Amino acid sequence: MAPNTQVLTICLSRIGDVCRMRMYDIILKKREGRELTTGEIKHFIAGYTAGDIPDYQASALLMTIYFQGLSDRETVDLTMAMSDSGERAALSAIPGIKVDKHSTGGVGDKTTLVLVPLVAAAGVPVAKMSGRGLGHTGGTVDKLESIPGFKAELEHGKFIEQVSMTGAAVVTQTGHLAPADKKLYALRDVTATVDSIPLIAGSIMSKKIAAGADAIVLDVKVGNGAFMRDIESSFKLARTMVSIGNLAGRRTVALVTGMDQPLGYAVGNALEVKEAVETLRGRGPGDLVELCMALGSVMLLLAGKAGNLETGRKILSDLLVSGKALEKFKDLIAAQEGDPRVTMEDGFLPVATIIEDVPASYTGYVQAVHAGKIGRAAMLLGAGREKKDSPIDLSAGIVLRKKAGDRVVAGETTAVMHTGDKQNLTAIKKIIQKAYEIGEKKPELQPLIYGMVPESL
Amino acid sequence: MAPNTQVLTICLSRIGDVCRMRMYDIILKKREGRELTTGEIKHFIAGYTAGDIPDYQASALLMTIYFQGLSDRETVDLTMAMSDSGERAALSAIPGIKVDKHSTGGVGDKTTLVLVPLVAAAGVPVAKMSGRGLGHTGGTVDKLESIPGFKAELEHGKFIEQVSMTGAAVVTQTGHLAPADKKLYALRDVTATVDSIPLIAGSIMSKKIAAGADAIVLDVKVGNGAFMRDIESSFKLARTMVSIGNLAGRRTVALVTGMDQPLGYAVGNALEVKEAVETLRGRGPGDLVELCMALGSVMLLLAGKAGNLETGRKILSDLLVSGKALEKFKDLIAAQEGDPRVTMEDGFLPVATIIEDVPASYTGYVQAVHAGKIGRAAMLLGAGREKKDSPIDLSAGIVLRKKAGDRVVAGETTAVMHTGDKQNLTAIKKIIQKAYEIGEKKPELQPLIYGMVPESL
Repeated sequence: MAPNTQVLTICLSRIGDVCRMRMYDIILKKREGRELTTGEIKHFIAGYTAGDIPDYQASALLMTIYFQGLSDRETVDLTMAMSDSGERAALSAIPGIKVDKHSTGGVGDKTTLVLVPLVAAAGVPVAKMSGRGLGHTGGTVDKLESIPGFKAELEHGKFIEQVSMTGAAVVTQTGHLAPADKKLYALRDVTATVDSIPLIAGSIMSKKIAAGADAIVLDVKVGNGAFMRDIESSFKLARTMVSIGNLAGRRTVALVTGMDQPLGYAVGNALEVKEAVETLRGRGPGDLVELCMALGSVMLLLAGKAGNLETGRKILSDLLVSGKALEKFKDLIAAQEGDPRVTMEDGFLPVATIIEDVPASYTGYVQAVHAGKIGRAAMLLGAGREKKDSPIDLSAGIVLRKKAGDRVVAGETTAVMHTGDKQNLTAIKKIIQKAYEIGEKKPELQPLIYGMVPESL
Repeated sequence: MAPNTQVLTICLSRIGDVCRMRMYDIILKKREGRELTTGEIKHFIAGYTAGDIPDYQASALLMTIYFQGLSDRETVDLTMAMSDSGERAALSAIPGIKVDKHSTGGVGDKTTLVLVPLVAAAGVPVAKMSGRGLGHTGGTVDKLESIPGFKAELEHGKFIEQVSMTGAAVVTQTGHLAPADKKLYALRDVTATVDSIPLIAGSIMSKKIAAGADAIVLDVKVGNGAFMRDIESSFKLARTMVSIGNLAGRRTVALVTGMDQPLGYAVGNALEVKEAVETLRGRGPGDLVELCMALGSVMLLLAGKAGNLETGRKILSDLLVSGKALEKFKDLIAAQEGDPRVTMEDGFLPVATIIEDVPASYTGYVQAVHAGKIGRAAMLLGAGREKKDSPIDLSAGIVLRKKAGDRVVAGETTAVMHTGDKQNLTAIKKIIQKAYEIGEKKPELQPLIYGMVPESL
């Protein structure tokens, strides 16, 4: 049958000079619910990154994946193909077990600002690449850039040198890592194919794997202020990412944590740096401190600096009390040309020109503070970006005075708006008031930590 | 809330200078299984035709429609939007009720060649626009062009004039009709989104409605040689198209007919013209004659030339016996500059240089002649196009000697190959032999006509 086979290997789907047959078959196969081979997934990622596979075929496949899903094996293949699409950060020059930490994004989530100096003070080298914020969640790099002089764009050699010298550095993520993910994410963003668990997991893990750490701790947020809205999907995402990380040879642990109300009290770049400093001083808000302890103790355990989570917590607690964690933050800021005085006293961070209270509409108990609405209000005050290239006001944001479970009297201040822009203040105030759900009974509070994947370490 | 609303109507999905927000929302809405409004469907079709909506968003929506389907209302809206995207053929200058006929495509389907002169001889004006073939099914225009001199590219005025003068004309479909469908079809073809019932129905009916006839008769083929493989889906497609046609004010009737084996005996352009001429002479193969009678009587009824289907059949039968139908074919060919002698005697149609028998592999009863395999074999012999711009050999094809139910002895000729190309003949012969399923028992034959939509007229 050889001649026959030869006759039949014709290209039935040709555009210009390029035969699209292979990609067509891949779309069709997945559309019919069949599993793609490793070779087919590599062909897709390599072809799309090189520009040989057009956007319209890639978006058709992404939508097919949205509907048909990917098996664990396919998800790992997709992740590795994206991770292999560009450079990999070489962290081997840094001695010790490097542990990376990633949050899926929440409102008021300044744990990275606390954790980087905290675990570095415990002797874990932290070479952190971080993103800028988009939409209602802030980015760690934006927050650090509210410190006067702080430079987040470090050349790779300098980055490695700083981690080796001071034990920690936080830099912007380079476009050379996982370029396939960058290109695919931009396409998903305009074709309504972002919220697919295997695609989210692949996107996050491809960057984490390319970023080169030996172990990865993930904070998967769930709630109205997070990307994932229900607990079941959050655990599914957590399990998927942990499975990918372990298969890629990086020990990976995920916590599923609540994001129904903002973390801590401050939302907005400089406001969050201030709260992080307070936390490193041992005076942080309970939920933020608890989350940093939970994530930090896992990081210490994975780095071999603590034999179990309890020991890890004890080490971290001591570092907060002794001031060594704050000292490490000061060193990190100084190493990246920021003004270290922000860790010592007020007055060195940018301050908003307009500061206005938001009064409570009713008397009662705060049942919930809708994190999504607070995040959106903070973005509209200038703290976040509507679009990728929007300018942001580093001083802008919201400081909550009341959180879920607190008693409030009508007219009492629930939150304070910080901004440089008078416009739309009335409308934004209404959004914040709507974020506060006030009722008669003292509410049962949502847990901060829903669970860990794996369940024990 | 007006200022707030204003603040929030920002474009969150921007590529370059264009806001993709509206199309993004349309994709998301359909992805979530919600019904699109008429305005949203019009926005998509108008924007895509104008080039404002990029291919990658269109393909994401097409794949979403593949998975989520379209309601009857959405399907009608899509069809009308595509139909309105270009010109509409003006047939009003032609007196009488114009009836169009469309087949979803089968192997050896030369009914249009028979029906156009046959119903025209009964006084129904036929202004037929037809396509060229692609893949394993042939196009009416290709078949007619095997008649020496025949011109299928008529200017619109001349087309109308010919229908008014001789009662019939067959021309190539102009690209000015339903350009949105043309553009969308090309995208579906490379993104594995062709086989969706609402998209197929919309594509066919948008062209039929734009082509301007007052009534439409559809032949929905089902079987291994057709696009639709199962009877249930075929009836669903038939009902969808009939519903669209009627809502668009065109009386529409569909027959669901079998395409498990080729229609008649001849497959290939000149070979099919010869069989059509035989049929118009009253000596056609039973299945082809029966299908022409069934479709033709519906056409006569819709055109008001017969009070019921039985009367219609009687009229058609008389026109075959009297030679008037053949005479009309001769007039049609002459009017379009073809050699009318092809209707009178052999020797005027192109003949293949290589004619070779395909012997039966076994002795027994032919259980089935796989239409899809015969169509592919004919294409490989040169009768069809692999790609849109492939040249075709008008003399090439296959003439069956045996069909399902026939007795055959091993070594006896089951079919005859006609080609101008020696290459691959052995492999093609094997495909034809595989198309013949031979067994011991006399098989129960599949029905030729499965049913009509609506069930009665």
